[in-house]
Amino acid sequence: MPLDTESLFAERMRNMRPSLVRELLKNAGGPGFISFAGGLPNPKFFPAEALITATEAVLRNDAANTLQYAVSEGYPPLREWIATRYRQRFGLNIPVEEILITNGSQQGLDLLGKVLLDPGDVVINERPGYQGAIHALSIYQPHFASVTLGGDGLDVGELSRALRAHADRAKFVIITPNYQNPTGLTYSEANRRAIAGVIRQRNMLLVEDDPYNELGFTGESAPPMRAYLEDRVVLLGSFSKIVAPGMRLGWLIASQEIMRRIIIAKQGADFHTNNFAQRALHHYLISNPVAEHIARIRAGYASQAQAMIAALERHLPAGISFTRPQGGMFIWVTLPETADAMAILKDAVAQKVSFLPGAPFFTDGDGQRYMRLSYSQADEATIEEGIARLARVVLQHLDAPATEHAAGDRSNKLRPRIETL
Amino acid sequence: MPLDTESLFAERMRNMRPSLVRELLKNAGGPGFISFAGGLPNPKFFPAEALITATEAVLRNDAANTLQYAVSEGYPPLREWIATRYRQRFGLNIPVEEILITNGSQQGLDLLGKVLLDPGDVVINERPGYQGAIHALSIYQPHFASVTLGGDGLDVGELSRALRAHADRAKFVIITPNYQNPTGLTYSEANRRAIAGVIRQRNMLLVEDDPYNELGFTGESAPPMRAYLEDRVVLLGSFSKIVAPGMRLGWLIASQEIMRRIIIAKQGADFHTNNFAQRALHHYLISNPVAEHIARIRAGYASQAQAMIAALERHLPAGISFTRPQGGMFIWVTLPETADAMAILKDAVAQKVSFLPGAPFFTDGDGQRYMRLSYSQADEATIEEGIARLARVVLQHLDAPATEHAAGDRSNKLRPRIETL
Repeated sequence: MPLDTESLFAERMRNMRPSLVRELLKNAGGPGFISFAGGLPNPKFFPAEALITATEAVLRNDAANTLQYAVSEGYPPLREWIATRYRQRFGLNIPVEEILITNGSQQGLDLLGKVLLDPGDVVINERPGYQGAIHALSIYQPHFASVTLGGDGLDVGELSRALRAHADRAKFVIITPNYQNPTGLTYSEANRRAIAGVIRQRNMLLVEDDPYNELGFTGESAPPMRAYLEDRVVLLGSFSKIVAPGMRLGWLIASQEIMRRIIIAKQGADFHTNNFAQRALHHYLISNPVAEHIARIRAGYASQAQAMIAALERHLPAGISFTRPQGGMFIWVTLPETADAMAILKDAVAQKVSFLPGAPFFTDGDGQRYMRLSYSQADEATIEEGIARLARVVLQHLDAPATEHAAGDRSNKLRPRIETL
Repeated sequence: MPLDTESLFAERMRNMRPSLVRELLKNAGGPGFISFAGGLPNPKFFPAEALITATEAVLRNDAANTLQYAVSEGYPPLREWIATRYRQRFGLNIPVEEILITNGSQQGLDLLGKVLLDPGDVVINERPGYQGAIHALSIYQPHFASVTLGGDGLDVGELSRALRAHADRAKFVIITPNYQNPTGLTYSEANRRAIAGVIRQRNMLLVEDDPYNELGFTGESAPPMRAYLEDRVVLLGSFSKIVAPGMRLGWLIASQEIMRRIIIAKQGADFHTNNFAQRALHHYLISNPVAEHIARIRAGYASQAQAMIAALERHLPAGISFTRPQGGMFIWVTLPETADAMAILKDAVAQKVSFLPGAPFFTDGDGQRYMRLSYSQADEATIEEGIARLARVVLQHLDAPATEHAAGDRSNKLRPRIETL
């Protein structure tokens, strides 16, 4: 019998399509190309020499355990290090049993979807919201109810209305209160408290996706939502932005009741996170002045952010607004309503500069007028040159009447699809 | 409102329970303890020094890429290495695009469940079958139809009947034809051809879980099922048994049509596999006499297997049968019908020796009379001592009338549950 592979796929995969943006960016790169697209940490901050020393130490001291299968929860001293850091920074006491080491915080999102979501359950997310979370969770077939994210944080009135509308099916609200991806926005303390108040009235969880927490430009960040909501919070963190993403090490913090189920899912998914990398990272963390290292990353990104803001002010017309982040890696540009960021991206790539268009950060097919710019990878001079190039393309598009191509694209608004970036 | 966490879990988690066996083994260990339980590679074969050199080389040569985010498919030269090895060993040409690097082959199982299984779909597996696969796939709520595994391989008549009975819902058959876990059995060539013939008549896939392929004691192994069934096969492989499991590196091979969906699932799950470990492993593989290293592991396990077989023959009464593996890490012991391996394990742990009882390898609540013994971790003298201890416990149990405890346990037979090991 001939094989009909398509007929064998699970229902959950039917809504998932390869990314148009990824296709467009396939041609991005080469000499002179300037990328503001990927949310990539700057490799100049990768502690390569210290990681050589750390890897050698753990393999020389205890190869038998470093290279062996290990417990699903993660390397206990690494979990202790994370607990200590929360205690030192925020006075927060997190039992080590409530910390799981994951393959980057992306795996935390997948495990949460797996453990919490039945098809048709509702996830309340930010509008715009992190596309990696939308992708990971979409596989579990929830309905996304997106709540507007503004300069102060989530629109709490809209949040309450969304929760009333979806009463029994809303499993969790997922937010990134610090230096959000894609907008760079940070929630005010009042907004965090108001969100906590709303969550506390319901039988549901808050997922705090917090990979940029350490990247506040002033060195200060607000305490995790767990400070307000205790066991109603699942907190996701990452070593990708403070050490190196290629090691794929993050963490998930949850109450013991949730953790028991998460561990069962983790065991099914891959037994445990790479033990070799966990032990090397832990040795690095306890043998180096990590706080100073993080301070250097903060200062570097602060300077790059400032350079990008200055360049945007210089090169873009006054009618185009953009966010001014207090930390993290991203600036969010709002173009006039008729703009088509996908069409702009196509031409920008031809001019050797890239960014991410807004659509993948929306679950309702909207977002065509936005651009996400990452300033983390380029130095100040390159940022100036890249923004000058990009602004020329943007201005050409805004001067021109809407093309057939752009109009065609805009019709996609009615057909939401999950972009996989 | 008080939080009712239990009410928030997804339906797919309701059948998953923490493992009784894991609980029992929590007290296993300490000085003098002999474990035949875990399927752990022997750490004396971990190439620690060579991995120190390899890690240093990749970090010194290209830290910027080794520590950065990477493509979801895996490090291309590592995928090339895998393709080359299949070409050299079996004359099999596998395009690099059909190879994905996973977090151990366990992640391959999870991705297959995610991409292929709707609740109620049927998975045909071996009876007994690998408990890690049962765990990973169970989360996607299939029905398992288990087909008897014998000395020659799968019972093909039973396989055909199972496929007829489950006509449209059977998505794949999953088998481990080489040195199977838990039995140590290897399929004959005739059996492989017969299985291929059955699969080819239907619109379904064969999943070949093949982590022990390189561990045949003679150095020869049969070609992968892909040689017979081409794009109808998904092949899972692993570096855990030939290099080190702590690095969590395995691979999944599938047709491009399946791979496209698997990649989307992989991106949602964790973006990509640990790049640091992938590059270090690749450098190790191309800079060291890997074939000789694997030959040493084979010879070591062959000698340990022989020692365990000799000890079992010496210490167990004639009525108790066990398998004689041609490779891999496991021996499967069949006790008299009334035996209760869980009760035996409890007493064995008190005598400082352990094994895995059979029940977790069955999906129908059966398996009480079996023991899985792993010979990979202990040297020959330790194996002799451990089997002598274990045989004393077994003999005591077989002499004694069934206890209340054992009878109570046996009633579980009617309530199948997914053991998570």
